[in-house]
Amino acid sequence: MSGGTREKIVAAAMDRFHALGFNGCGVQEIVDAAGVPKGSFYNHFKAKELLAIEVLETYAKTSRRDLLLDESVPPIDRLRNHFGFLASRYEANGYTRGCLLGNFAAETADGMPELRAALDKSLTRWTGTVAGVIRAGQADGSIAGDLDPDRTARFLVSAWEGAVMRMKVVKSRESLDDFFAVVFPRLQAR
Amino acid sequence: MSGGTREKIVAAAMDRFHALGFNGCGVQEIVDAAGVPKGSFYNHFKAKELLAIEVLETYAKTSRRDLLLDESVPPIDRLRNHFGFLASRYEANGYTRGCLLGNFAAETADGMPELRAALDKSLTRWTGTVAGVIRAGQADGSIAGDLDPDRTARFLVSAWEGAVMRMKVVKSRESLDDFFAVVFPRLQAR
Repeated sequence: MSGGTREKIVAAAMDRFHALGFNGCGVQEIVDAAGVPKGSFYNHFKAKELLAIEVLETYAKTSRRDLLLDESVPPIDRLRNHFGFLASRYEANGYTRGCLLGNFAAETADGMPELRAALDKSLTRWTGTVAGVIRAGQADGSIAGDLDPDRTARFLVSAWEGAVMRMKVVKSRESLDDFFAVVFPRLQAR
Repeated sequence: MSGGTREKIVAAAMDRFHALGFNGCGVQEIVDAAGVPKGSFYNHFKAKELLAIEVLETYAKTSRRDLLLDESVPPIDRLRNHFGFLASRYEANGYTRGCLLGNFAAETADGMPELRAALDKSLTRWTGTVAGVIRAGQADGSIAGDLDPDRTARFLVSAWEGAVMRMKVVKSRESLDDFFAVVFPRLQAR
């Protein structure tokens, strides 16, 4: 049941990291939540940082980036559906947990080069997908043609992460509503 | 020299929290950096969270929000100068430390209600000042009149914080450049 143990650790770590942050919870708390002996942790992960990278990959898979790729849906609606899904997930957590990527990003220091590299990769992949949607909308004339797709996509993802950070502070979706209200009219072709 | 001890602790904590995060450094590390005995910490602060609140207030005072209030400068240039100052400060840190507000916001959990309240207050004050600049620019016709000043100010501050978070991951100012390139043309009255 070695595979089972690893999966239990990753699932428990995702929950604990999300609730408490990378530095806010230790290996002991994670193995307790996973219900596995502490010794088994180091059979699977050489360091907490490497576990965080695996958690990050698992988290990204639950972020419904597939909604951005659904070509049966108009590009601007794909963006709305994707960010709307994320908002609904935060709501389910009472707006307390924020985005695991953003939380990890804020906690990354010079001493965590591997986690930083994994975050860069994940954000770059996400941004690339958003840029693809903007390009598709520009090609069909629904998204403003004067926007630089790559720069706009990076800006949108950053602005979203910032809005989520503020959401965590205020415990309300006001900052997410700001994002939708400011961003979408600007994306729309005129 | 009790006042001196307190100031040393706050200065050391600002540096250590900024480098390592709230959960990433303990009281021992802070008193070591301050060069004061650990016992003196609890003479001044009942808890690390209360120290973080004092650090936050001190940090906000170094953020040149006064640049937003300089009525001898056109409103849009005040915004550019303020965010430009912040960018230059991040550059001086090699883009590694990010914004203390954003870092704390990402780390705040349900268990830190006082730090959350202090962050809310600080972000609200900052946002209010930015909204005032937008209103001034709308009054003199230099900033687009169709923007809701309060919503736009909240969005800008959040988007900035998100850009800073990504800056920390990538260790470059690209995301800050995105902010300037996307935001300022939109603010400009047409």
